[in-house]
Amino acid sequence: MSFNTFGHMFRVTTFGESHGVALGCVVDGCPPRIPLTAAEIQRDLDRRKPGQSRFTTQRQEADQVKILSGVMETERGQVTTGTPIALMIENTDQRSKDYSDIKDKYRPGHADYTYEAKYGIRDYRGGGRSSARETAARVAAGAVARKVIPDVKVRAALVQMGPHKIDRANWNWDDVTRNPFFCPDATKAAFFEEYLDEIRKSGSSIGAVIEVVAENVPAGWGAPIYGKLDSDLAAALMSINAVKGVEIGAGFGAAELRGEDNADEMRAGNNGPVFLSNHAGGILGGISTGQAVVARFAVKPTSSILTPRKTVDRAGGETDILTKGRHDPCVGIRAVPVAEAMVACVLADHFLRHRGQNG
Amino acid sequence: MSFNTFGHMFRVTTFGESHGVALGCVVDGCPPRIPLTAAEIQRDLDRRKPGQSRFTTQRQEADQVKILSGVMETERGQVTTGTPIALMIENTDQRSKDYSDIKDKYRPGHADYTYEAKYGIRDYRGGGRSSARETAARVAAGAVARKVIPDVKVRAALVQMGPHKIDRANWNWDDVTRNPFFCPDATKAAFFEEYLDEIRKSGSSIGAVIEVVAENVPAGWGAPIYGKLDSDLAAALMSINAVKGVEIGAGFGAAELRGEDNADEMRAGNNGPVFLSNHAGGILGGISTGQAVVARFAVKPTSSILTPRKTVDRAGGETDILTKGRHDPCVGIRAVPVAEAMVACVLADHFLRHRGQNG
Amino acid sequence: MSFNTFGHMFRVTTFGESHGVALGCVVDGCPPRIPLTAAEIQRDLDRRKPGQSRFTTQRQEADQVKILSGVMETERGQVTTGTPIALMIENTDQRSKDYSDIKDKYRPGHADYTYEAKYGIRDYRGGGRSSARETAARVAAGAVARKVIPDVKVRAALVQMGPHKIDRANWNWDDVTRNPFFCPDATKAAFFEEYLDEIRKSGSSIGAVIEVVAENVPAGWGAPIYGKLDSDLAAALMSINAVKGVEIGAGFGAAELRGEDNADEMRAGNNGPVFLSNHAGGILGGISTGQAVVARFAVKPTSSILTPRKTVDRAGGETDILTKGRHDPCVGIRAVPVAEAMVACVLADHFLRHRGQNG
Amino acid sequence: MSFNTFGHMFRVTTFGESHGVALGCVVDGCPPRIPLTAAEIQRDLDRRKPGQSRFTTQRQEADQVKILSGVMETERGQVTTGTPIALMIENTDQRSKDYSDIKDKYRPGHADYTYEAKYGIRDYRGGGRSSARETAARVAAGAVARKVIPDVKVRAALVQMGPHKIDRANWNWDDVTRNPFFCPDATKAAFFEEYLDEIRKSGSSIGAVIEVVAENVPAGWGAPIYGKLDSDLAAALMSINAVKGVEIGAGFGAAELRGEDNADEMRAGNNGPVFLSNHAGGILGGISTGQAVVARFAVKPTSSILTPRKTVDRAGGETDILTKGRHDPCVGIRAVPVAEAMVACVLADHFLRHRGQNG
Repeated sequence: MSFNTFGHMFRVTTFGESHGVALGCVVDGCPPRIPLTAAEIQRDLDRRKPGQSRFTTQRQEADQVKILSGVMETERGQVTTGTPIALMIENTDQRSKDYSDIKDKYRPGHADYTYEAKYGIRDYRGGGRSSARETAARVAAGAVARKVIPDVKVRAALVQMGPHKIDRANWNWDDVTRNPFFCPDATKAAFFEEYLDEIRKSGSSIGAVIEVVAENVPAGWGAPIYGKLDSDLAAALMSINAVKGVEIGAGFGAAELRGEDNADEMRAGNNGPVFLSNHAGGILGGISTGQAVVARFAVKPTSSILTPRKTVDRAGGETDILTKGRHDPCVGIRAVPVAEAMVACVLADHFLRHRGQNG
Repeated sequence: MSFNTFGHMFRVTTFGESHGVALGCVVDGCPPRIPLTAAEIQRDLDRRKPGQSRFTTQRQEADQVKILSGVMETERGQVTTGTPIALMIENTDQRSKDYSDIKDKYRPGHADYTYEAKYGIRDYRGGGRSSARETAARVAAGAVARKVIPDVKVRAALVQMGPHKIDRANWNWDDVTRNPFFCPDATKAAFFEEYLDEIRKSGSSIGAVIEVVAENVPAGWGAPIYGKLDSDLAAALMSINAVKGVEIGAGFGAAELRGEDNADEMRAGNNGPVFLSNHAGGILGGISTGQAVVARFAVKPTSSILTPRKTVDRAGGETDILTKGRHDPCVGIRAVPVAEAMVACVLADHFLRHRGQNG
Repeated sequence: MSFNTFGHMFRVTTFGESHGVALGCVVDGCPPRIPLTAAEIQRDLDRRKPGQSRFTTQRQEADQVKILSGVMETERGQVTTGTPIALMIENTDQRSKDYSDIKDKYRPGHADYTYEAKYGIRDYRGGGRSSARETAARVAAGAVARKVIPDVKVRAALVQMGPHKIDRANWNWDDVTRNPFFCPDATKAAFFEEYLDEIRKSGSSIGAVIEVVAENVPAGWGAPIYGKLDSDLAAALMSINAVKGVEIGAGFGAAELRGEDNADEMRAGNNGPVFLSNHAGGILGGISTGQAVVARFAVKPTSSILTPRKTVDRAGGETDILTKGRHDPCVGIRAVPVAEAMVACVLADHFLRHRGQNG
Repeated sequence: MSFNTFGHMFRVTTFGESHGVALGCVVDGCPPRIPLTAAEIQRDLDRRKPGQSRFTTQRQEADQVKILSGVMETERGQVTTGTPIALMIENTDQRSKDYSDIKDKYRPGHADYTYEAKYGIRDYRGGGRSSARETAARVAAGAVARKVIPDVKVRAALVQMGPHKIDRANWNWDDVTRNPFFCPDATKAAFFEEYLDEIRKSGSSIGAVIEVVAENVPAGWGAPIYGKLDSDLAAALMSINAVKGVEIGAGFGAAELRGEDNADEMRAGNNGPVFLSNHAGGILGGISTGQAVVARFAVKPTSSILTPRKTVDRAGGETDILTKGRHDPCVGIRAVPVAEAMVACVLADHFLRHRGQNG
């Protein structure tokens, strides 16, 4: 069963394929009277937009968002009305290329074979629904989510490319906007420039790890068991194209720790307890602690590479394939604004859910 | 908002606290005419039951399941009727101990503080709803799920304890039942015995990594975007107590790979394509490939340890706490059958969802 | 797909068959710190309990409710904790009668044939899941719902039996508790006693209309389109056994009116507008107006009658059937407390939903 | 909480206001490989389109639908792909009229006051989200639903206007397309022409009753309790603007019947049982019987009339209002294609749900 909605109270339904008429989303459940303009949404979309450096796909898309519903001009400017907010982004660069090389072959590492196995049909044009273009709709929704929880600051950064991790001592959020990698370590960013150039020129691709940090999340959001904040974050991040792993706080590192090293001790603070560390990543028992919520996720290398790979075709015959076209050498880069959007949506949803049950 | 249900078509709602009258679940949407007895469910519950070795909590619970509804005796034995299957496990060993030491103090690394921040009240008796006892209800539901997809084989194993990983060359599924750790590497299991004894005796605890493998999942289960099989698996596994990370296939390792090393090449097979590797963990674009579905997750060390830790009390004062009582030195061990149950539930759900949309 | 849950924020999942071990429900999403005892739930259950007069089934069920989870003893008495509240009612009078007469025959007007058509199996013992016994679980859930919205007063009354309508000029809520019909018109109640006796003795049954009134519902609950308060009320009431019609306010009568007669005019009041009439039944555009919410529903006559009726058996052969056993001559009577419960659940749900989105 | 989605497996999310940029819907869960063109959807939209006779609003809307996603051109023509189908209808006749007369006054019988009570803001332009224009999106979705269950024939007809009921002996489906009222009784239709002209010219409006009939629904769709087919139909029909009552089969008439008169007797047929009557309206225990599914609903008279009515303004002052502009004298007329669409959506959903659980 296809299911293109996420969230309970702040509900986002996305639609659209790489080479269709348009893509977009319907944001349902947004509180009323929140100032919201297309320009604000556009700002986030522009951060994700392809073609901004030589390190992302050269596809040219204006990615211009239109608000179709759910807002109204008032004396205080344009605000939400509480009704569904439909956002649309028209596709403009659906290059009418020749798809004959992939129409009947399954690209290894792509969803070509699985879509066909599921639906008995596959929109091969630019990857159809499995294209990373769908994430534009998420970023648009995330921009709305940010307005629902204005005090919460959600930021993400690329912290590893291939085997190369940043030096956390160098972490500077301001640097994230100063390099094409959303990398908070300026030194490592300089290295990535050369490193990724080599990969790009050799027709290959590389994986990455991204970290998302949400600050000013009050204690008490989330819920036990299947309403866990970390469970919803895991689902949200894992739903991003090419993601193969998610961790919260100390994550897989926690498996190596002893109880006395992992549990975050508490001291008295002016506004509730102060924690002496944050192995928990801001979440205990599925509920926020008031510390920064910290998640990381791994993005696999794009499978669209220039090296020929063994595969089969729809008729069952064996063949080779190499993927020409405009692709991201490190698709993890553009996952950065997408991850922020997903985390913002999850938090906006949990804010409303918490307020509903707890007043 | 509390949300104690998971799944769309195969829907499980659990209830119950550590020291309440009973815990259990309602399994809704199960297909009719499936043979199902309490004994079959009990088999899975017994694998999770505490007190089976010195390496799990010494709490004595019969964990005896009763089927309250949804089945009927027929000539073919007891079968499901298509109506909700309610399963109940009565609590029998709610030791009426003195809780004064934790009633008003927040145990670091526990959900004590966050439950109170959320609800303004906390069931401190044995951890209330945050207790690992809730997972008994999941295991019961998982036993039903297995009957819905009888051809699918879901097995899990402990593959790392603290920093010590198993040797994959030694992997033998039969060994999983021969040691108290659900460990598939007999040599490492022998080592774990000593290792965990030392930790247990020192009043400490340790983390672990568990791997779940589902075989015979046909290609085509799952769906794009927010219906992704891996997204649902991530949510399901992250919802288990103490889990801090989830990965599919190559997982975080994929971040270090190049495209040509990560994408699984295909050759022609008798029943659809054959893959030459399984970095994808059996899932591409959120849809199963027909290969084994492989997931791993990290479990943090129990925070209930005998070493005193700094904390605060409900009045905001600073204090120390050490957690006496019956606890698991490596809570990851008992997570093994729980993970199998969660994966079985997710797969049963996706089987029904796929059948609904695709016939 | 079976779906035994209703509500979004205040979510009720029921389970259980007429002749199973037990029936009950899980109430999820209930706010924390609400005083709740089994005795309060029992009060509502006792109003629905069979065997209280000669006008309802003579089945003897204690209908004793147990709270299995979700509450905790505090200094202020027993209160909810925000976690799922499981309620169980054990079946005690599952008379081990001979079912051979209905096991293989479909009773006309019953769900016998449709359950079999759907599931390929049918729990014929007492009607299985289609038995009115399931409504006990609803009443229990409704008792919890009432505690969530203590200022709202939900009451129902039988306003028609067969073709005989009450005289609205005689409406007295106090009379509802003074006759076995929940009838607010004492004169008509006296008439019903004779009327129903005749029907009962002749082995027949009769339909009824029930009206539910919810007072003190603030303006603003509900939502446009598919979150409409009246849409949810219609679904909730139509889900009760034997209900064949639902109307809000003027209902079907509104079809006969002109615009100037139907629209409720408004005047200024101390707390918002005052309406000069209530054809809307307290709901406009799916959202409550602040007036009393008024719904009515029609209950068909029980199909379990002593007159032989034409039917077929499972083998496809033609036969006759008459239903012996303990049945309600007017099943609409016991629908009164059930309807109150359903309306209370819908309102509690919309209260939480409204608070979530609107603060 | 706003909730603009209905359905479980066949899920429709609508968006849009009367005077916004566009309205539309996202249809999620549609099976793949179903032929679908904009022209087919347009056909249904044209039946609902305003301005086709003097008996509906004179607003001129092209109501031209665009398919934004979810379809693909193949050798067999354009087909669905299994991914979300987004449909958009741009608003073209948002007459920039002067809204000063309703901007600050609440029209009696309208949702003006309740939207404001809920959201603290109200899109007064043409009724905003509460406008009947939203139903265009439903009709578009319904056209897709029809393609999912091509063997099922869903038709509706106006059977009562004001107090005037059609003569059922005259029922002729062909007549429905031959008069501007969707009336199956040609004689009554002729009468309605005069009757409604008088009402229209006097600046008033009138209510109506519509009947929907779905033929060829196989036995077994629907489910017990909260997944009841009739419960979902009631919610779907009650969600249509101005609907105040819904009934299935004998409906409120069943309340007046005795058991032996209401229960539909069965005889053996070639393909399962044959029923001798259809008081049940094709549904027993929430599950379809294989007979025609029959539902009726009451539509109140439009509150937008030329007669001045007492009301209050936003400042709380008392005033009068009369609604100029382009309105339907009998809004029930255009509810006919909308009702067909809703019923088609509910049936498509239950078809997929049944197939999911039961194979």
